Amino acid sequence: MSGNSIGQNFVVTTFGESHGVALGCIIDGCPPGLELTEADMQHDLDRRRPGTSRHTTARREPDEVQILSGVFEGKTTGTSIGLLIHNTDQRSQDYSNIKDQFRPGHADYTYQQKYGTRDYRGGGRSSARETAMRVAAGAVAKKYLKSHFGVEIRGYLSQLGPIVAETIDFDQIEQNDFFFPDASKVEQLDSYMRELRKEHDSIGAKVSVVATNVPVGLGEPVFDRLDADIAHALMGINAVKGVEIGDGFAVVNQKGSEHRDLMSPAGFASNHAGGVLGGISSGQPILAHMALKPTSSISIPGETITVQGDSTEVVTKGRHDPCVGIRAVPIAEAMLAIVLLDHLLRNRAQNFDVNSPTPVLGMR
Amino acid sequence: MSGNSIGQNFVVTTFGESHGVALGCIIDGCPPGLELTEADMQHDLDRRRPGTSRHTTARREPDEVQILSGVFEGKTTGTSIGLLIHNTDQRSQDYSNIKDQFRPGHADYTYQQKYGTRDYRGGGRSSARETAMRVAAGAVAKKYLKSHFGVEIRGYLSQLGPIVAETIDFDQIEQNDFFFPDASKVEQLDSYMRELRKEHDSIGAKVSVVATNVPVGLGEPVFDRLDADIAHALMGINAVKGVEIGDGFAVVNQKGSEHRDLMSPAGFASNHAGGVLGGISSGQPILAHMALKPTSSISIPGETITVQGDSTEVVTKGRHDPCVGIRAVPIAEAMLAIVLLDHLLRNRAQNFDVNSPTPVLGMR
Amino acid sequence: MSGNSIGQNFVVTTFGESHGVALGCIIDGCPPGLELTEADMQHDLDRRRPGTSRHTTARREPDEVQILSGVFEGKTTGTSIGLLIHNTDQRSQDYSNIKDQFRPGHADYTYQQKYGTRDYRGGGRSSARETAMRVAAGAVAKKYLKSHFGVEIRGYLSQLGPIVAETIDFDQIEQNDFFFPDASKVEQLDSYMRELRKEHDSIGAKVSVVATNVPVGLGEPVFDRLDADIAHALMGINAVKGVEIGDGFAVVNQKGSEHRDLMSPAGFASNHAGGVLGGISSGQPILAHMALKPTSSISIPGETITVQGDSTEVVTKGRHDPCVGIRAVPIAEAMLAIVLLDHLLRNRAQNFDVNSPTPVLGMR
Amino acid sequence: MSGNSIGQNFVVTTFGESHGVALGCIIDGCPPGLELTEADMQHDLDRRRPGTSRHTTARREPDEVQILSGVFEGKTTGTSIGLLIHNTDQRSQDYSNIKDQFRPGHADYTYQQKYGTRDYRGGGRSSARETAMRVAAGAVAKKYLKSHFGVEIRGYLSQLGPIVAETIDFDQIEQNDFFFPDASKVEQLDSYMRELRKEHDSIGAKVSVVATNVPVGLGEPVFDRLDADIAHALMGINAVKGVEIGDGFAVVNQKGSEHRDLMSPAGFASNHAGGVLGGISSGQPILAHMALKPTSSISIPGETITVQGDSTEVVTKGRHDPCVGIRAVPIAEAMLAIVLLDHLLRNRAQNFDVNSPTPVLGMR
Repeated sequence: MSGNSIGQNFVVTTFGESHGVALGCIIDGCPPGLELTEADMQHDLDRRRPGTSRHTTARREPDEVQILSGVFEGKTTGTSIGLLIHNTDQRSQDYSNIKDQFRPGHADYTYQQKYGTRDYRGGGRSSARETAMRVAAGAVAKKYLKSHFGVEIRGYLSQLGPIVAETIDFDQIEQNDFFFPDASKVEQLDSYMRELRKEHDSIGAKVSVVATNVPVGLGEPVFDRLDADIAHALMGINAVKGVEIGDGFAVVNQKGSEHRDLMSPAGFASNHAGGVLGGISSGQPILAHMALKPTSSISIPGETITVQGDSTEVVTKGRHDPCVGIRAVPIAEAMLAIVLLDHLLRNRAQNFDVNSPTPVLGMR
Repeated sequence: MSGNSIGQNFVVTTFGESHGVALGCIIDGCPPGLELTEADMQHDLDRRRPGTSRHTTARREPDEVQILSGVFEGKTTGTSIGLLIHNTDQRSQDYSNIKDQFRPGHADYTYQQKYGTRDYRGGGRSSARETAMRVAAGAVAKKYLKSHFGVEIRGYLSQLGPIVAETIDFDQIEQNDFFFPDASKVEQLDSYMRELRKEHDSIGAKVSVVATNVPVGLGEPVFDRLDADIAHALMGINAVKGVEIGDGFAVVNQKGSEHRDLMSPAGFASNHAGGVLGGISSGQPILAHMALKPTSSISIPGETITVQGDSTEVVTKGRHDPCVGIRAVPIAEAMLAIVLLDHLLRNRAQNFDVNSPTPVLGMR
Repeated sequence: MSGNSIGQNFVVTTFGESHGVALGCIIDGCPPGLELTEADMQHDLDRRRPGTSRHTTARREPDEVQILSGVFEGKTTGTSIGLLIHNTDQRSQDYSNIKDQFRPGHADYTYQQKYGTRDYRGGGRSSARETAMRVAAGAVAKKYLKSHFGVEIRGYLSQLGPIVAETIDFDQIEQNDFFFPDASKVEQLDSYMRELRKEHDSIGAKVSVVATNVPVGLGEPVFDRLDADIAHALMGINAVKGVEIGDGFAVVNQKGSEHRDLMSPAGFASNHAGGVLGGISSGQPILAHMALKPTSSISIPGETITVQGDSTEVVTKGRHDPCVGIRAVPIAEAMLAIVLLDHLLRNRAQNFDVNSPTPVLGMR
Repeated sequence: MSGNSIGQNFVVTTFGESHGVALGCIIDGCPPGLELTEADMQHDLDRRRPGTSRHTTARREPDEVQILSGVFEGKTTGTSIGLLIHNTDQRSQDYSNIKDQFRPGHADYTYQQKYGTRDYRGGGRSSARETAMRVAAGAVAKKYLKSHFGVEIRGYLSQLGPIVAETIDFDQIEQNDFFFPDASKVEQLDSYMRELRKEHDSIGAKVSVVATNVPVGLGEPVFDRLDADIAHALMGINAVKGVEIGDGFAVVNQKGSEHRDLMSPAGFASNHAGGVLGGISSGQPILAHMALKPTSSISIPGETITVQGDSTEVVTKGRHDPCVGIRAVPIAEAMLAIVLLDHLLRNRAQNFDVNSPTPVLGMR
């Protein structure tokens, strides 16, 4: 496989470049009988869409998704679902200046060396525009998980540069342009971003995502652990440089007596584990975090080389997010949904007639 | 797949429980012509082996690996390689007390709920003993990478609880019991661990791993990025709760002008990226970190439930590492080697006749 | 996986129903640098297309394929290729009568039982219309094989009901409506088909496909043998009930002294093997045959049941081929091309630096 | 993947050469809770074992299989099952004469060209000895299918050279040395084989395999059809050159009115389809046939080349079956069992809550 697919039972395969004709994906393995229309995907596509806030790129496209197959009389049939989004606002001319040079911190150099060629228009396949299809596919997974198992998946921006969310109020997330759960800091974020824009610079971010009501038993031991597959899915999002489950890197300085989540008939006493024990979901909420680097597409000049290897200077023009982390919130939700549904289907295959004498625990 | 395999072109599949008859693995996809003997694997197995230091578990087994197939007249033939390690020091009696209760922070509860049963002896399949086969398979990958491409993979303990390595001296790593690259702090580590043992507690750790001379172009865009597959491989190691590539979570508070690695004909000016751009290796050293939780197997009593769901208290007996992070160093190296060789073979498949006009950059 | 993908390195995933909005596919793993336009696929699509001969279904659609991604400035970029064909002549009303009953010999009953629902319009996903995308993807594989390795793939109808091709003249194949290589029997075929149409019946057929200049060494031992993967690909074509490699079922009554293909420095003396020894290509031409059942869509009434399980009688109306085998010729070529390119890429991954002292043999 | 694995949910991966230390396999995906001991596999291993009849090779090995993992307290745990058979009767000296030359009709030449090397002892990895592990794994699949679904899988020799079974009496199959279901012809077989041995020649055969009580709905549309996967599994058995489902190649000269299996509330009227419609099991018995070539290991001299490419003559010594088809009967059963269980688990994943209004049909 050349890497454009994810999942084993709920398989999502995508295609499309930033400035090509269209983006698309095939979902193979969606169970039959799920009610599905384009509207189910459009909400999350709109949340990811550029141009919805003054803090994200100015590119404006409707990102209208179309279902081409796999749905009949309003319900999935069990056969493969084809999805399509036409590119409508491509403005290729913006990118002609980077045809012959590599933007530092971008995939320009590595694509050129790997393939001997590259679609330089807007980053081509390496553009975050590709994630639109992940969001569409993730919305299908989300709907199945919600309607069949009550699983809720919610993401938020937990940190932007130096500004950390100190309270996590899920009701606030959709109330501001930053998916930020701490209303007391939204004004601070706003002025920070204004300042950044003046500097022509960009900033990193931390995004968190939580899934509740996840059934116990998802995840396969050894290599395809649930947490390993979540790490794969989140690290595979553009600009991500780190992934944590539960307490993440804080465990380095924790003691065993502090970290282990005690259990009683009333439930788990804590959730340091982030919902995964031995690679398998425990019924605690799944909690994951990811670190996104600042975009390298800034208009501060930088030293680089041409395609022929000569020294030059680059200034990235075009329309770019000063903080790519913000729009990554719905992408993180989508990827978590895809991984959870994939493992749920895998688990069904092996273990559908399992009966354990142990009652399922919740959180205390 | 039920998760006991990793890789697509260099595929490693393992079996075996902590207290079963034997551990084994099959390597499918090792290219023909590699000189290989048991001795090539034994060195890393000995580094991972319990009982080599007073700071790791007292279980003592020779962990002698045997090649059962795939090697003829001292060289690999291209067919599948079967490897076996017999379990010799099993002392199952140590674990009889946990048959009917779940150790908090362990996979006992999740295995029971997933499968309706579990091999409770030493954690069964969830035991870190399983990683011996990863180390053996990783040694094969390491040897191929080294002999055919000059790739060097080296791991070290970068932090243990509050003690952080401040200098990274690769020559020191094998000179102490901790794989610690900062000689000035080894005595401090030693006394910290002695203290911990008195408290009957355990501690987390951070392990780092570096690969140099990695060819440009490894990694498939979109889902199977090199960094995503590294994250999958490292997060799949027992006790790991976080993975970073390059600057990792530090990017959250970096600006684009600071993070992007500038390029010139003399090479990359820095390596904030950790060797991966757009999911593809750049020729910079690959640098990854992982956080390991403190083992939950401590003899401080803890609240838990029985298999029937009743309240009880657990005290883990048996032989356990107070810091599982230490022995994870060779495991991290093995997993990185497996991922790199797998991607190297994948890349060959697609892109073997690629000719880019751009010269390959090193570090300045 | 839910089965809508084929291949491991050259992976084709399809979607689309007979009467849905569109058919599409994603090719993941096409090497970069291949010149590719829609015209490269259109020739084979036209050969498969209904309505080109009076002996195939009267449904008329242009089957115009569109490249949506993966090609830049006329060449493949190494990223995933999205292909689309819009359905334009759907006439769903023809099929309303089969909504509530199952056509014997069709997938109606099995889809209903598997999924609890089915898109009954023209067979939905089970329609041979789906094979249009295989032909498009196969044309890409064919072009790569031809341009990079000189591999030629040619199919023909070797038998239709009682009429057997006795001479195989490749120049004749495209000269008649039947892809028939024996010009002396075309008139006989023509009158046979006219007679059949009067009887409102259908007939089976045998299709053969040959690949020449196939490199030695393709195919992986044990399960993913080249012949096993060819069998999988051909048996996966609608209506196929048997697959042969080389002498096929004739070997049942052959002796070893007769069957084995002797070798000399001048080459192989014969090709009973059909180009595969031990699951690996030998350099002899690859020769495969497949048997296609007569379509069950005939207007002779037949006993069946309703969706509720009651007795009823069915008469299939609509536009159907009296011999589906004819149009299967380009499909067989496409599937063989996909398998060969997939194995060629797989082989590169493992064995690219292999040097055998043995010269490569041709046929004498 | 390098081809040593089969299946997606019930995955069998094998290793081992004819004259290596041991053969082994890993079963990944066997559901938990199945009672399993070595004895469950030994019966089929004994049926496949050489030396049980005077008509098969004289090599004598106990072929004792050992379970190394995945079974605890007599039941499968859901984790990977390691199986091992030590090679005990290797007599490598028999094969030293073929070290430098290629046996026509064998994999010697293709392995050499693919890998640049080969384990020439007894064919190494290409030996049918490898199938012992398939039989062991297949016995596990058979047991699960039988105990959980009542599926029965039975194979027989339907033709040996010119001698065709005319009656299929399942009770006769285990009563003779040939797995032959027509008692009236056993004497004829016996004298035919004696004559063949005098001629130092070998003969082809046809093996059939039937599965009854197969649930409706197994098989994924398009590429991973049940019949396509059966074809893959059977064509992947050593020496197989053709595979048929149901009426197989006889369909070429059938009319639609004759071939289609009519349905009524009482069941299917016939089984021309061989139990598969549109790639999905119909509930009719699954019926498959395969053609096995005569072994090329005969002591009649034959023209060939040396490893250096020079002309020479080969006479195969050693212990060989004059009809490899006979021992292929338990192998065919094993492969069908593996495919059916794999699809049964796959089907569970997607479609476990499906409710069709249509009652399940049997055969009339």
